[in-house]
Amino acid sequence: MFYDLIIIGGGPAGIAAGIYAARQKLNTLLITKSFGGQIARKAVGIENYPGFEKISGLDLIRKFEKHLRKQKIDIERDGARKVEKIGGKFLVKTAGKNIFKAKAVIIASGADPRPLEVPGEKKFIGKGVSYCTICDGPLFANKEVAVIGGGNSGFEAAIFLSSWTKKVYILESADHIRAEEAVQEKAEKTGKIEIITSAVPKKIEGKNFVESASYQDNKTKKIVSLRVDGIFVEIGSQPATSFVKGLVDFNQKDEITINPETMQTKTAGLFAAGDVTDVVYKQIVIAAGEGVKAALSVSNYLFKQN
Amino acid sequence: MFYDLIIIGGGPAGIAAGIYAARQKLNTLLITKSFGGQIARKAVGIENYPGFEKISGLDLIRKFEKHLRKQKIDIERDGARKVEKIGGKFLVKTAGKNIFKAKAVIIASGADPRPLEVPGEKKFIGKGVSYCTICDGPLFANKEVAVIGGGNSGFEAAIFLSSWTKKVYILESADHIRAEEAVQEKAEKTGKIEIITSAVPKKIEGKNFVESASYQDNKTKKIVSLRVDGIFVEIGSQPATSFVKGLVDFNQKDEITINPETMQTKTAGLFAAGDVTDVVYKQIVIAAGEGVKAALSVSNYLFKQN
Repeated sequence: MFYDLIIIGGGPAGIAAGIYAARQKLNTLLITKSFGGQIARKAVGIENYPGFEKISGLDLIRKFEKHLRKQKIDIERDGARKVEKIGGKFLVKTAGKNIFKAKAVIIASGADPRPLEVPGEKKFIGKGVSYCTICDGPLFANKEVAVIGGGNSGFEAAIFLSSWTKKVYILESADHIRAEEAVQEKAEKTGKIEIITSAVPKKIEGKNFVESASYQDNKTKKIVSLRVDGIFVEIGSQPATSFVKGLVDFNQKDEITINPETMQTKTAGLFAAGDVTDVVYKQIVIAAGEGVKAALSVSNYLFKQN
Repeated sequence: MFYDLIIIGGGPAGIAAGIYAARQKLNTLLITKSFGGQIARKAVGIENYPGFEKISGLDLIRKFEKHLRKQKIDIERDGARKVEKIGGKFLVKTAGKNIFKAKAVIIASGADPRPLEVPGEKKFIGKGVSYCTICDGPLFANKEVAVIGGGNSGFEAAIFLSSWTKKVYILESADHIRAEEAVQEKAEKTGKIEIITSAVPKKIEGKNFVESASYQDNKTKKIVSLRVDGIFVEIGSQPATSFVKGLVDFNQKDEITINPETMQTKTAGLFAAGDVTDVVYKQIVIAAGEGVKAALSVSNYLFKQN
C-alpha cells in the first residue's frame, strides 16, 4: 500500500491530524504503539481541555481514539524505527519490521518527561507523583509538595504551586541554583518555598498516596526524609525522535524545529506537530491544534504536487 | 477594577484563553457580546473538534461556556469599541460606554465570513447555506451545490466538494477567473465542476432547505436560476479589528499579524489569537490552542514585569 500520508504517534497531535487527514480524503496510515501519548500517564482529572470541565485522562483518550476510528483511516499498532526519504517518497520502517510507504509524513511521537528513576516513582504516578504542574497543581490545595529540579521550570512550577499549596520544597541535586535571579526573587516573595540544594532524590514512599520523599544530602551524605503529599518532577523532557535523525533539525532541547505556521520541517513533505516539536507550550489542546495544522499543510503540499 | 488581563471575544480562542488565564490565577475579564463566535452560525453538526465525534454548534458552545464559567473570571456582555495603551496600561472602552483597565489584553474577536447579502441567505444558514466547506462538505454527498467566488478559495472549496457531491457550480461575478492556473486545471480534472463567469448572485430560494440560487448574467442581463441543494460562500472574510487599529499590524486580508509562537502583536502586552489573526488555518481546535498560547504568554509577560 502506498499511502498519501503516514502519521507517527497516537497522542492528541497524531489523532487530531488523523481525523482531519481522513476528512480531507487523504489515504492515511497512523502508526502508534498505544493511544493517548502523555495523557495516558495522567490518572488525575484533566480540567483544561476546552469542552470538558473535568475528564479522566483515560476517558479523554477513549473519546479521541473513538473519534479517530470513526474515520476512514488505517491504524498500525507498532513503533517507528526509521524514516527515510528516497526518490521523493518516504519509507517508514517499524520495530515490527514492516515497511510502509507514503508521499508525506507527520511526526507526532510526543515527548516523555524525563523521569527521576528512583524507587516508588512509577508506583505513585497519578497518586501524588506528577509531571505536569499546570494540570495537577490545583489538586494539592493546602498540601505540602516537593518540586524536583532547581532550573527555571522547577522554580516556575514551585511559584505556581505556592498559590495553591501550604508549602513547596525545591530539591536541586547540584550545590547551587540554576534558575534566573528574577525567578528566584519571585519564589522568595511567596514566603512558602524552601530551597534545598545538594539534594539527590532517592526514594518515594507512601501507602495509597505519596507520603514522603527521601534524598541524600551530598554534603553530609546523610539520607533525609521529607513529609510531602505530592512530588512534581521538573528535570526536563525527552522528545521521541530517534527514528528521524538526519531529516530534521533539532533545538537545544532535542525538539524538532518547525515552521510554526505550517509545521513543515526542513525536509519537504515531512511535518511535525505537538510535544515532539519546539512549540513553546506543551498542552493537549495546543498539540491537537498543531496536529490539525500539519494535516491541512500536508493536504496543501499534496495538492501542489499533483 | 484593574485587571491583570482583558480578553476580547467569546469564541473558541477567547474561551480557551479565559480557562487557562483563570487557572493561572490571573485576575481576568472577558468581554463579549455573545458566546460561540463563528460556531454560533453553524446549525449543522461539528465533526472535527477532537473528542466529539459529532456535536451541534450550539451544544459545543454551551459546553465551552459552561467550562469557562466554572473558573474564577469576570464576564461582561458588551462589545469592544476602542483599545488604548496609556502609561504602559491598557484601557478597553466598550460600546456600552464602560471603561475597563488591565495590564495585558488578548484580542480574540474572530472574523466573519463576508456575506453575499442577497435575499434568502440568512434564512438558509445551516439549511443549505454554508461558509465552511471543510466542515459542511461531507453533508452534501451526491447532491448538487454552488460555490460563490471564483478565487483560489472558491476553487479549492469546489475541488474538495467534488469528492462528495454529484455536481459543483462555481459562480464568479467578474468576467474572468482569478484562481491560479494549476488550481483551475485541478478543478477541470474532477469532471464535476462547471464554472459560470459574469454571474452576480441575486437570490437564494427553497422551502425548508435551499432548492435554488438565482444570478444575473452580466452579459445578457438575464436572471438565471440554478437548481442546487447547497451554497458555499467563498468571497473572503472580515476580521473584527476596528477597535484596535494603531496598536497592531495587519496583513493584506486585514488580519492581525502575530508572532506565531507567542501570539504577541507589535505592542508589548497586547496579544491576539484565533481567526482575527494571520494564523494560516481557521479551525475551532486551532483557535482554542492559539487562545491557550496567548494566555500562557500573558502569564509569562506579567511574570517578567513583576
